[in-house]
Amino acid sequence: MDGSERHLKLTVQYDGTEFHGWQRQLELRTAQGLLEEACSQLFGRSVEVAGASRTDRGVHAEGQVASLACVHPVPTDRVGRALNGLLSSDLQIVHVEPVGADFHARFSAFGKLYRYVVDCREVARVFRRRYAYHHPRRLDVDAMAKASECFVGEHDFAAFQCATDQQPSTTVRYIDAVSVDTHDDFVEVNVWGRSFLYKMVRTMVGTLLEVGRGAWAPERVAAALETVDRRAAGPTAPPEGLCLVRVFYAEEEMASARAAWEAQNVR
Amino acid sequence: MDGSERHLKLTVQYDGTEFHGWQRQLELRTAQGLLEEACSQLFGRSVEVAGASRTDRGVHAEGQVASLACVHPVPTDRVGRALNGLLSSDLQIVHVEPVGADFHARFSAFGKLYRYVVDCREVARVFRRRYAYHHPRRLDVDAMAKASECFVGEHDFAAFQCATDQQPSTTVRYIDAVSVDTHDDFVEVNVWGRSFLYKMVRTMVGTLLEVGRGAWAPERVAAALETVDRRAAGPTAPPEGLCLVRVFYAEEEMASARAAWEAQNVR
Repeated sequence: MDGSERHLKLTVQYDGTEFHGWQRQLELRTAQGLLEEACSQLFGRSVEVAGASRTDRGVHAEGQVASLACVHPVPTDRVGRALNGLLSSDLQIVHVEPVGADFHARFSAFGKLYRYVVDCREVARVFRRRYAYHHPRRLDVDAMAKASECFVGEHDFAAFQCATDQQPSTTVRYIDAVSVDTHDDFVEVNVWGRSFLYKMVRTMVGTLLEVGRGAWAPERVAAALETVDRRAAGPTAPPEGLCLVRVFYAEEEMASARAAWEAQNVR
Repeated sequence: MDGSERHLKLTVQYDGTEFHGWQRQLELRTAQGLLEEACSQLFGRSVEVAGASRTDRGVHAEGQVASLACVHPVPTDRVGRALNGLLSSDLQIVHVEPVGADFHARFSAFGKLYRYVVDCREVARVFRRRYAYHHPRRLDVDAMAKASECFVGEHDFAAFQCATDQQPSTTVRYIDAVSVDTHDDFVEVNVWGRSFLYKMVRTMVGTLLEVGRGAWAPERVAAALETVDRRAAGPTAPPEGLCLVRVFYAEEEMASARAAWEAQNVR
């Protein structure tokens, strides 16, 4: 290997419980911070790592994607193992591949899949307590599924965004699909979309839970969306139930993942 | 409710990661200790709780059973909720039922099911890292299954016992069934038996892993069992992969659970 610049795409898995989110913050343990520290140590100079999604404090990732440039002559197939040795058991790299110089984890992304898991049993299952929101109520999953239909397509999601310092230029977003399923008293909401506003998935789920527990009629969700007013939507669901499952870099990649998922999850 | 003595059977779930095992120990956080503390607080006097299995430090329980006697007039259906409020998110009571005065969690037990999970991927899956032993090797599951056949039936398991202060009167034990299966690069060993010696399941699994990775021929396990000598068996597998799944109090209960399990797990 020569010393010329190489660009890498890393697929990263983390348990968000003990992280203050993805984004680097002074003095706080963050996924980006930990990863940049390990990369800087391995490559012998300060490395910046870009992430596909700025997951919030407590949110998990099964398939976060990070991109970086490096000049170190470590062969690509050994980068993952070398970094994992410098990382921690709650953040590991599961895949490394070389990419072109124009690849950027966030700006090159076509779409993402987020999953939100709710444990509806009266007593929370201890082995899932870090990865599911415990909401011990019977939920009307059909009403939630019906209510979720209004999210599909292009809409102004201003009502489902939380205030943030980094206000986006537009609050219009495109959602490809939302599913609401139940398995063994867990309710799982999958949201496939192109990009998302701050805490958007958690506010969508918090609002669907109002429908699920019977406090809201399904139609009220569509009405809340139309107001473009945050006060009209329901509460923001807590972070522990949310996971960034996968980031897609091409339309066909996302379409085939959706088709495979749907084939396995016929209700 | 009057103030007469009542006997209760509790089904308890715990994540063993942060416990020094089941058995009460001075100054250490144990499952029995935590449970006795909560019961003593709820019932207003010192309560002793008997457990079906003395799980070791780091071992999990999906269905540990505990028994106790109390005189407090809390209705049975509220005991679980009241205790859970005094317990911790990593130890919760999932079921409470009244039992006769002669019921004892350990001495009344007919059999138990333990499950050991091995994560064989090169990179450990972060969401299972607390509940699976990471052993990044390809395992020959058929060879492990073949080797495990020698455990079934009544045998002297002295070779598969670790030294302990509380030496049992006999090292003969009865194993009903052992299965070795693989799902998505996890290898799962289920052991159904009547009672177990100290660290017996972990030593059985540690030995089967020697077969799985090709270091031992399957026949060597049967030969090790026959020696009745601990030095002949393989290493003791680490605690994080082990879980006490269920305790059975009647032969039919265990038989029907096995039949249901087998129907769902046809290879």
